[in-house]
Amino acid sequence: MTTTTPFEQHPLYPLINPRSIAFFGASNRFSAMGTNQLHSVQSLGFKGKIYPIHPSEQTVLGLPAFRSVTDLPEVPDLAVLVLPTAIVTQTLEACGKKGIRHAIVVSGGFNEVGGAGTALERELVAVAKRYDIRLVGPNCLGVVNPHHLFNVTFAAFEGRPGHIGLASQSGSLLTQMFHYLEQYRIGFSTGISVGNEAVVDIVECMEYLAACPHTKVIGLYIESIRRGRAFIETARRIVPHKPIVAYYAGGSEAGRRAAFSHTGAMAGPDQLYDGVLRQSGVIRAASLTELFDFCWVLGRCAVPQGRHIAVLTHSGGPGAAAADAASRNHLELTPFAPRTLAKLKSMVPQTGSVNNPVDLTFSRDPLDYFRRIPGVLLEAPEVDGLLVYCFVPPKNMQRMMENQGLSDDELAKLTDAIADDLAANAASMADAHHKPIIGFTYQSTEMPIIRKLLDHGIPVIPTPERAVRAMMALAQYGERVAKILSQQ
Amino acid sequence: MTTTTPFEQHPLYPLINPRSIAFFGASNRFSAMGTNQLHSVQSLGFKGKIYPIHPSEQTVLGLPAFRSVTDLPEVPDLAVLVLPTAIVTQTLEACGKKGIRHAIVVSGGFNEVGGAGTALERELVAVAKRYDIRLVGPNCLGVVNPHHLFNVTFAAFEGRPGHIGLASQSGSLLTQMFHYLEQYRIGFSTGISVGNEAVVDIVECMEYLAACPHTKVIGLYIESIRRGRAFIETARRIVPHKPIVAYYAGGSEAGRRAAFSHTGAMAGPDQLYDGVLRQSGVIRAASLTELFDFCWVLGRCAVPQGRHIAVLTHSGGPGAAAADAASRNHLELTPFAPRTLAKLKSMVPQTGSVNNPVDLTFSRDPLDYFRRIPGVLLEAPEVDGLLVYCFVPPKNMQRMMENQGLSDDELAKLTDAIADDLAANAASMADAHHKPIIGFTYQSTEMPIIRKLLDHGIPVIPTPERAVRAMMALAQYGERVAKILSQQ
Repeated sequence: MTTTTPFEQHPLYPLINPRSIAFFGASNRFSAMGTNQLHSVQSLGFKGKIYPIHPSEQTVLGLPAFRSVTDLPEVPDLAVLVLPTAIVTQTLEACGKKGIRHAIVVSGGFNEVGGAGTALERELVAVAKRYDIRLVGPNCLGVVNPHHLFNVTFAAFEGRPGHIGLASQSGSLLTQMFHYLEQYRIGFSTGISVGNEAVVDIVECMEYLAACPHTKVIGLYIESIRRGRAFIETARRIVPHKPIVAYYAGGSEAGRRAAFSHTGAMAGPDQLYDGVLRQSGVIRAASLTELFDFCWVLGRCAVPQGRHIAVLTHSGGPGAAAADAASRNHLELTPFAPRTLAKLKSMVPQTGSVNNPVDLTFSRDPLDYFRRIPGVLLEAPEVDGLLVYCFVPPKNMQRMMENQGLSDDELAKLTDAIADDLAANAASMADAHHKPIIGFTYQSTEMPIIRKLLDHGIPVIPTPERAVRAMMALAQYGERVAKILSQQ
Repeated sequence: MTTTTPFEQHPLYPLINPRSIAFFGASNRFSAMGTNQLHSVQSLGFKGKIYPIHPSEQTVLGLPAFRSVTDLPEVPDLAVLVLPTAIVTQTLEACGKKGIRHAIVVSGGFNEVGGAGTALERELVAVAKRYDIRLVGPNCLGVVNPHHLFNVTFAAFEGRPGHIGLASQSGSLLTQMFHYLEQYRIGFSTGISVGNEAVVDIVECMEYLAACPHTKVIGLYIESIRRGRAFIETARRIVPHKPIVAYYAGGSEAGRRAAFSHTGAMAGPDQLYDGVLRQSGVIRAASLTELFDFCWVLGRCAVPQGRHIAVLTHSGGPGAAAADAASRNHLELTPFAPRTLAKLKSMVPQTGSVNNPVDLTFSRDPLDYFRRIPGVLLEAPEVDGLLVYCFVPPKNMQRMMENQGLSDDELAKLTDAIADDLAANAASMADAHHKPIIGFTYQSTEMPIIRKLLDHGIPVIPTPERAVRAMMALAQYGERVAKILSQQ
């Protein structure tokens, strides 16, 4: 691995995998942010101890409450503070005295508001230093670690433990992605809202995520990088082992201003950041959507040997759109070798095309489409990766099967079994050839074949353009690694 | 209107709104394309007469079949041909003799395959000319006109009659958008798969769609424009009255090759097409996704007076992403006038931001977010259009309401009523100020507030970047119209 520290000994381990928590700022009123956050911890089924600290309540959300952190029967791994700004620093000090060494400070009103807030943040940092507290925040939305059943954000967790480790300078972004990722059958390994980065910054989070065995890819939402040199050096150590994808929001004038109001961070010129990310070996996403698309495929697919791809379609329009987007993103639709062409000719009807994109047209067998033809394309040495258009007209399939006298129930089961078999086969072909397959579609992820492909780990991305960009990110990752290794 | 021909007298009217159809190539086998297409006509509840022509069957899909077109008791408005290539021309001739003046030829094997196919197409055109037949195709997937309950594509229609008139050089694209559009609560007014454009070309379809009162915006999927001069002149006549959006797939080398295999059309260099579309006043979409996004907003929203927009968010990340994308697309996040700032300050908490993007942060009232603040922004003279981030954490809302002791049923009804009221209000504010509101989200369109906004005609587009590009298309349309009018 990239860090010499074993995962469990990483300084952030107890913060992200706590066994016990002191919780400040939850009550029994659901209009309070802190109550929502404590409820989020409970509702995901957190296995550790939770100690709510409350000045007057006997119980908070059914848990025995304590008047003060000094009253606690043990020293918890973590303190979570969702308190009015004015009492945050003194509370952290009480935690430090108790012996607590990890804290998440959700409260805002610090550096991001300037003036007095900046002074307050300086005091907060001084207390953290005095007691050697690793502190995430202030002005953050917390942490989610579904593998540990730990979610301290204000939103109830929806989804599954997954492979994406996110460190984000936007907090609510994290929570807004729970459902979004789940619809693609992917999820967070860990998500960290870094807030003002008063103590723990995005570089330290990258190191933690690099060490985390559940994290297959690191995603970053960046409005400003504070320690440029450390960022570059850390990323270059991580990238050969684990891909990093970053979205930078401050690249334009308006993005810069928005970032400044948001976290008080000074963003830099787009070109500067582009250079820093490139030098770091980080894949840059051009949008939030791409940030998650790239994390999706980089955690799921083999890295292609080059930029020569094949496109398989049964519809000319989406095929041409994919080809066009591929060209614009410097992927090459490879001309097929005679051997490949000969095999394809036996499977593709005359009205179709054996050139790249391979266009089967509508009339043929889905078994060929999802099994035999991808097999031919993946085994062709001239093909580094495969894009497949996924579209099954739902009513037509039903129509055809009803015609064979099947009941609704039999029909659903049969469709499912066929889809599962095709998807499993596609996944094992991709594995066997160490080449990526990325599907693209305009349909819902609830269509049987798409759901099964997702379940078997094959990304099926809405729109040809996004799928092409994701394939480009895979190729770019291979190139970035090669470059870093060549410079060592 | 743009054409002097009244809609009902347009040469394509009987083809797209037929009262009666002769159908060639349907049988009782569902594996046959023609059968699927006839079934599509029936299943949408077509009100006219259908005459299947079949050499041996007594009935086809329950309809009395005829041996030959000459046996029909009347002259149908339209013939649909889904036949083997070799017998298409002679069948069209029989139709011509019967007096039929409109045909859709689905069969392929003509110009798109070259060689003998090109010669066959020449014969087909000669027959069409001899009998004065307006012919769509060959090598097309037919026409859909949900307002007339007429769908002759192979896919069963899903969705609703809508406002988008599409003329497409990709046939199956049309059918693949049925469900896609429905999830956004929009739909086709008419869709025409133009195929090889042997007789009726995309320019003639534009003229029809310009005259069609259901069509609020014209969408074009283009792999090649055959009559450049006519295209430009026709578009320039239409655009001041009705927006046209085009996606051109042949712009890159690979796109060009894909288009060539697909329809045999020679695509031209990207820059040439860019110039042609610009000169025509057509809005160019950079992807298929944009083609439909642009058609969506251009049919739903007021055209902004300029490029000064406001962004409203309760989450910094998506707000910054929208701001960044706006800058990159030459939209300006307008600085607010003192009057506007003063009003906003009373509604936005200290942890939020009254600058543009207006960031309410999470903690505040949804009534302010969807009602009072948009009101302030829309009435500000410095604001031409408004982008609003739409995200409601589903479980949190439920949690808060359950806390008030409501049953599931009461809760669903109450949520729906509130959402409906907010959405109706937002739509009437947009109307009153003649300014566009575009929502953006990462959530499903099934969330109550999003569903209600869509139902009330406010587009809510997945991802900030797509929403920004859609706003840009609206502004661009205003500019294109102004330019054309200034040149007249």
